Amino acid sequence: MGESMSEVIHGEIRVKTNRAIEVTDITSSIQDWVSQKGCQEGIILAFSVHTTAGMVINEAESGLMQDIESQLKEIVPPGAGYKHDRIDSNAHSHIMTSLVSPSETIPISSGSLSMGTWQRVLFVEGDGPRSRRVSMTFIGKTG
Amino acid sequence: MGESMSEVIHGEIRVKTNRAIEVTDITSSIQDWVSQKGCQEGIILAFSVHTTAGMVINEAESGLMQDIESQLKEIVPPGAGYKHDRIDSNAHSHIMTSLVSPSETIPISSGSLSMGTWQRVLFVEGDGPRSRRVSMTFIGKTG
Amino acid sequence: MGESMSEVIHGEIRVKTNRAIEVTDITSSIQDWVSQKGCQEGIILAFSVHTTAGMVINEAESGLMQDIESQLKEIVPPGAGYKHDRIDSNAHSHIMTSLVSPSETIPISSGSLSMGTWQRVLFVEGDGPRSRRVSMTFIGKTG
Repeated sequence: MGESMSEVIHGEIRVKTNRAIEVTDITSSIQDWVSQKGCQEGIILAFSVHTTAGMVINEAESGLMQDIESQLKEIVPPGAGYKHDRIDSNAHSHIMTSLVSPSETIPISSGSLSMGTWQRVLFVEGDGPRSRRVSMTFIGKTG
Repeated sequence: MGESMSEVIHGEIRVKTNRAIEVTDITSSIQDWVSQKGCQEGIILAFSVHTTAGMVINEAESGLMQDIESQLKEIVPPGAGYKHDRIDSNAHSHIMTSLVSPSETIPISSGSLSMGTWQRVLFVEGDGPRSRRVSMTFIGKTG
Repeated sequence: MGESMSEVIHGEIRVKTNRAIEVTDITSSIQDWVSQKGCQEGIILAFSVHTTAGMVINEAESGLMQDIESQLKEIVPPGAGYKHDRIDSNAHSHIMTSLVSPSETIPISSGSLSMGTWQRVLFVEGDGPRSRRVSMTFIGKTG
């Protein structure tokens, strides 16, 4: 029933974004890292190390990805008189990232991300284009 | 001070929803699973394997549960011209789920969910009624 | 590559808030706990045990912290006819907390919170001022 365990593995993956606000599917990069490290049973913490880019889990349908971008702009309109904009003009990027959160924790089973059929890990760029890093931490059993 | 540990346990619970958008208390199902598997000290990752249903943690007061449903509809209005609606007419369900996130990670102490007095795990159906699955992963020590 | 592991450590930190809706930087309290417990490699689950106060991770710039407070009030306006307000007049605090979530999971590497340069753990008080508790669970290897 249980699996004996012994490992913590740290690493990172890189994400190149192309637009100011952009939802990108990074599932295969995460799965590649999991496979490469030999992660078998446990959980993975994928953690964006940025204050203006986070992550959600949803379907990677191109229309929906644009809808998520648009709706985030509705919920946190750019340039709406934010105090932080006096310093850096990207308050909306920070607030969006606060709402979606910088990380997702995902079950790993038999060496694979254990998600639903349509679930994908979507990186949410809030202030691109930029080169981004997602730190990876696996807790569990390798094989 | 620390507890020696050795286990990863995977499983799932099922949730039957009754309305299109519905907040349901699933705390006792999660606690039952934790007890049944003998989880003692660690964390549980409860992860909805769906792109149109997620989870939050809050009070299970019936008025508040309706308020959460209504406010999610305010924040992500159904049918607001989303591109994904050309395919499936449930873009709002996907975007709501992106915002609330599909999972919660909860401390387990002495075999119980270790939350505050009023905290309950609330399943957020965004496109019901449906039969849903929540994957469960325990990391820690069994007894 | 991997680290052998054996520990689950539970504890808590306390947070004193001063205003009704207030974003506070609690990073150093969390780091102090991590150091005190000798956590080396793994993850920490910081979990607010309250239904009206949660957490986000972002930059601790004072203007931005006020922007997050203001924007949460835009997204979930206080007193907007909520059913829960008949009981307790703080429905907005509960709904805000549902959106930001009560917890953050953070990688621990070489005994430190492993976040980006500008990332800080921000406690989001939604119904203060109050004395609050954040439960801490470490999973990983101590040294």
